[in-house]
Amino acid sequence: MLQKWKRLSSRPIFKSKWLSLFSRSYQLPDGKIVKDYYHVSRPNYVSVIAVNKKGAILLERQYRRGVDEVLYELPAGWVEKNENVLSAAKRELCEETGYTGRAEKIITLYTNPGFSEMKASVVMIRVTGRKQSRPGKDEAIKVGFYPIQKVTAMLKRNRLKDMVSVAAVGYFLLFVQEKQSS
Amino acid sequence: MLQKWKRLSSRPIFKSKWLSLFSRSYQLPDGKIVKDYYHVSRPNYVSVIAVNKKGAILLERQYRRGVDEVLYELPAGWVEKNENVLSAAKRELCEETGYTGRAEKIITLYTNPGFSEMKASVVMIRVTGRKQSRPGKDEAIKVGFYPIQKVTAMLKRNRLKDMVSVAAVGYFLLFVQEKQSS
Repeated sequence: MLQKWKRLSSRPIFKSKWLSLFSRSYQLPDGKIVKDYYHVSRPNYVSVIAVNKKGAILLERQYRRGVDEVLYELPAGWVEKNENVLSAAKRELCEETGYTGRAEKIITLYTNPGFSEMKASVVMIRVTGRKQSRPGKDEAIKVGFYPIQKVTAMLKRNRLKDMVSVAAVGYFLLFVQEKQSS
Repeated sequence: MLQKWKRLSSRPIFKSKWLSLFSRSYQLPDGKIVKDYYHVSRPNYVSVIAVNKKGAILLERQYRRGVDEVLYELPAGWVEKNENVLSAAKRELCEETGYTGRAEKIITLYTNPGFSEMKASVVMIRVTGRKQSRPGKDEAIKVGFYPIQKVTAMLKRNRLKDMVSVAAVGYFLLFVQEKQSS
């Protein structure tokens, strides 16, 4: 029988709005106590599969400082406090690209379940319109709709490397796409 | 044209073998300087798709303290210093489950490209044998081979939530499985 661990303490090492780091101790199911297990807290985020009427998927290209590379990605962004994931997805898509549409939750994913509770919600938005986009001050983003065949080829060749984008696009191609295009 | 940012400084806030946190400043392509961007360093890891002769995939169930849940996952583990990803995948699979086999790299994924260089390599291992397993001291793991149809259903119903497992299994079902079973 797989049992949960019991958290005994959580000592903050660093706290900020966007990232907090804790050192935690736990009691294991066999009674043993383990210490200095690091835990990272970051806000939850959304990853958006925006699909236009032709069934093409919106991809962004942007510089990502963590890996110091320009990457292809789905639109994504943090979920604000007291915001639901569908609203967050619509807000992020509109801010980054100007596109608007109907939102539908697809799946929930844990990014780093070993050391963080951070959760990504994958949301599909069927694009129906476009407003003026208002990218954030540091966001230099190239945006384009890519036909399914092209996205499939990019995924296959590992030109998509962003993990949440790979998970979301893979799921979409396997389980959502046919319903969508019919 | 999408340009990289120039890193000006990286101040360590916390350092340990398993996790380090930095506060970084950058110069943006337009010359502006931004400060206090957090960066998390963790070792790279491998995610293992172990396939037996019937084409079934090995899944683990284990408690994950980051999300305080028992999850289904692919076997995974850190890559040691000076270890290549195929060796790391074979070592982790054998330690956690006892299974051995031929390893082949599938894709590379960036877990958190916005704030970490952490990289996951997805490795397929065609299982050919089994040794005594030697799980790590804190690892209570249930292991089983699941037929492709079952894994597909679990993925579809979001019973797989671990992001790297969803990305890896989705990729496998889309692009690797047919070659594998032929």
